[in-house]
Amino acid sequence: MTIRVTVWNEFQHEKKADHAAAQIYPNGIHSTIADFLNAAGFQAGTATLDEPEHGLTQEVLDNTDVLLWWGHMAHGKVEDAIVDRVQARVLAGMGLIVLHSGHFSKIFKRMMGTSGNLKWREANDKERIWVIEPAHPIAEGLGEYFEIPAEEMYGERFDIATPDELVFVSWFTGGEVFRSGCCWYRGSGKVFYFRPGHETYPTYHQKEVQQVIINGVKWAYTKPAYVSQVVNVPEFMK
Amino acid sequence: MTIRVTVWNEFQHEKKADHAAAQIYPNGIHSTIADFLNAAGFQAGTATLDEPEHGLTQEVLDNTDVLLWWGHMAHGKVEDAIVDRVQARVLAGMGLIVLHSGHFSKIFKRMMGTSGNLKWREANDKERIWVIEPAHPIAEGLGEYFEIPAEEMYGERFDIATPDELVFVSWFTGGEVFRSGCCWYRGSGKVFYFRPGHETYPTYHQKEVQQVIINGVKWAYTKPAYVSQVVNVPEFMK
Amino acid sequence: MTIRVTVWNEFQHEKKADHAAAQIYPNGIHSTIADFLNAAGFQAGTATLDEPEHGLTQEVLDNTDVLLWWGHMAHGKVEDAIVDRVQARVLAGMGLIVLHSGHFSKIFKRMMGTSGNLKWREANDKERIWVIEPAHPIAEGLGEYFEIPAEEMYGERFDIATPDELVFVSWFTGGEVFRSGCCWYRGSGKVFYFRPGHETYPTYHQKEVQQVIINGVKWAYTKPAYVSQVVNVPEFMK
Amino acid sequence: MTIRVTVWNEFQHEKKADHAAAQIYPNGIHSTIADFLNAAGFQAGTATLDEPEHGLTQEVLDNTDVLLWWGHMAHGKVEDAIVDRVQARVLAGMGLIVLHSGHFSKIFKRMMGTSGNLKWREANDKERIWVIEPAHPIAEGLGEYFEIPAEEMYGERFDIATPDELVFVSWFTGGEVFRSGCCWYRGSGKVFYFRPGHETYPTYHQKEVQQVIINGVKWAYTKPAYVSQVVNVPEFMK
Repeated sequence: MTIRVTVWNEFQHEKKADHAAAQIYPNGIHSTIADFLNAAGFQAGTATLDEPEHGLTQEVLDNTDVLLWWGHMAHGKVEDAIVDRVQARVLAGMGLIVLHSGHFSKIFKRMMGTSGNLKWREANDKERIWVIEPAHPIAEGLGEYFEIPAEEMYGERFDIATPDELVFVSWFTGGEVFRSGCCWYRGSGKVFYFRPGHETYPTYHQKEVQQVIINGVKWAYTKPAYVSQVVNVPEFMK
Repeated sequence: MTIRVTVWNEFQHEKKADHAAAQIYPNGIHSTIADFLNAAGFQAGTATLDEPEHGLTQEVLDNTDVLLWWGHMAHGKVEDAIVDRVQARVLAGMGLIVLHSGHFSKIFKRMMGTSGNLKWREANDKERIWVIEPAHPIAEGLGEYFEIPAEEMYGERFDIATPDELVFVSWFTGGEVFRSGCCWYRGSGKVFYFRPGHETYPTYHQKEVQQVIINGVKWAYTKPAYVSQVVNVPEFMK
Repeated sequence: MTIRVTVWNEFQHEKKADHAAAQIYPNGIHSTIADFLNAAGFQAGTATLDEPEHGLTQEVLDNTDVLLWWGHMAHGKVEDAIVDRVQARVLAGMGLIVLHSGHFSKIFKRMMGTSGNLKWREANDKERIWVIEPAHPIAEGLGEYFEIPAEEMYGERFDIATPDELVFVSWFTGGEVFRSGCCWYRGSGKVFYFRPGHETYPTYHQKEVQQVIINGVKWAYTKPAYVSQVVNVPEFMK
Repeated sequence: MTIRVTVWNEFQHEKKADHAAAQIYPNGIHSTIADFLNAAGFQAGTATLDEPEHGLTQEVLDNTDVLLWWGHMAHGKVEDAIVDRVQARVLAGMGLIVLHSGHFSKIFKRMMGTSGNLKWREANDKERIWVIEPAHPIAEGLGEYFEIPAEEMYGERFDIATPDELVFVSWFTGGEVFRSGCCWYRGSGKVFYFRPGHETYPTYHQKEVQQVIINGVKWAYTKPAYVSQVVNVPEFMK
């Protein structure tokens, strides 16, 4: 069965003609990601902030096996009701992959129970991403490490729930480390956070980054043993 | 330094003279718990739902090292602003111990990112609580297991974030198991969930249960290396 | 690519005509397991204690993606050099699935760093195996729990390294619980322990048990990102 | 009760008058460590390779709550029988702290089930040790990170069992990261690995390093709920 993916992007930076992101991702980050996912054999569509219900209707989510999330400057504009819907769908078995600045998104903070805080610096740091768990399926095909020549730095402490599986740790030129590939189980679903992807760098055009995201989709896809139903909750307990 | 504890209770059942809970805990579950914590050398106060700000003012929280939480029939009445405040205080280093039916509390679901769902049955099951991690400080003094003669049953699957440390697993007469002692790191604070304590049973009068809660307070008390500050977040990212 | 499996069995009980195991597994437990694995599309062979090098030559191991291990009464007869060889192969990327009484095998204790100790009782307990992590691939197709009508009881505390992923917890009639499905990462390989399978019960003929083992093989199969090489170790450090 | 510590050191480098280690640790690394532990209120003794039974008689171990281990050039000279004895004592509740090049010691590899392999380079790298888990007791008093001006580099991948608690991650000038503070539960005991401490640098004279080791001793000290006894194991199963 083909895995059905929806790539969500707030799609704000790329609409500004004079923004660096518009040069690198002329059709938006989501399109670039959906393209390489479709080329890899998934059935990938997109959704963006400005669409009705942010493009994430119940029907769209019900037909999504794995949802990717990229957001940066408009986290606050995502409606709480949609966040509720996405969370419920993850707990019911959908995979969720949160990318880069999505660490401050409502849905990520919701799934973690934490602030998502971290250190950051835009200074063209080199990022070297070390594979910590070589047997993890998300690391397949990578070797010991790979490098991104220039990226925004993200540094610890990253305020997340302790990862259930820690796949990557990044080294940055300026002296920071970062848990850059983290996996969690949540309900009958799974969550994967992957650090790279600042909008002013061509990161999602890089082969290794694409490989990680492809691997991540395969890992996050679940056929859960069951979905825990909250039934018969008395009114007073809600 | 003496550990400062606040025991929060919704304190609803025990106010009804004809309720079983009123016989077992005439001054409320919180008073019983605070009493044995004070006797153990902590400085324990209480707070309840019906007090202004549910008794959890910023000042109270700032002077609390470890907060205990018991709620059951009034989860929905806890104001979101207070939940925000408690979460922020946990992330800044306060310990949080959630008891029994607190699994459906707003604060617990907030810290987990999950529904808190589980199976339950009131049928006087015997509960046998097995110590899975004998070297964990929360298990100190317990032996291989201890029993509660009659309790409400809670069964898997318990919809929680994977515990960072799993201390206890319960066996119930009727065929269920339950991860009944679970630990998590969140921000610069810690969270401990402990299963027993239905209001119609004298569970919090039992010696082993008191021992676990005493151990839990010691474990949850933190002197964090630092508190992660969210500073300089641009407006557009909020 | 077809996953290549070797099912290792000490194959002692089943050779005794008057032993219950000989009735249930006339060609040995290994044959029964290899048969259903082959039927599931894997390429499964077998190896046993009495073969030269216990059937686990370097060539056999080099051509094995996932090794299953069943042993009970002859752990001490397994040569240390073969255990070294199996461990090295796991660290280099082979999957290892240890079944039932293999908890006391040299290879399992080697991979854990612990004694493998547990409680046991042969008294026809009913075992109810609860799925704790519904999104885990080893739980695929199972539902909330399944039962084995009669089995040997294994009880906590199970002296293992903390599982990296806890998939199943068992309930037994007599009052015990057990972490019955446990996953670990070791080197570039993976280890899965699955509890059921006493030789005097038809456990490996049961559909759900076969499903778990099939799922386990898929999970344990790795295409590691790399294999950590110990190179240039000075003589004095060996 | 005062925690009883034994600091074990192979004590080879420091005996060579012309070795840098002899200048930095004239009485041996073990003496320096024991001194600051005694000053911190523990009851710390020492033991070394060349003593009978390497100084680790059953009596010494029975009266040790936490054992520290430093070895480098003589791992192979440690007798297997002593390693068995130390492992048994850890499983029975003793804490074990393995320092720096102890990653290749027999006892550490025994507790891990892995090779202990890693990358290394002696090039005066600066090491910046980031606190990943600020609420962990081993991080108490440290701040966000601390630096060691010059040290031997250790890099991933570090071939260890997945840490149960990951406290520190190191950054090195040359481009490497390392999980430099790792905790495990084993049996009724605990194990802590702490990376720094090459014999040609004054690392164990540094205040923050001493603080971590002091915190580590407190964390590793256990009063286990029970000790799992392997009783009545039939001869054939041994």
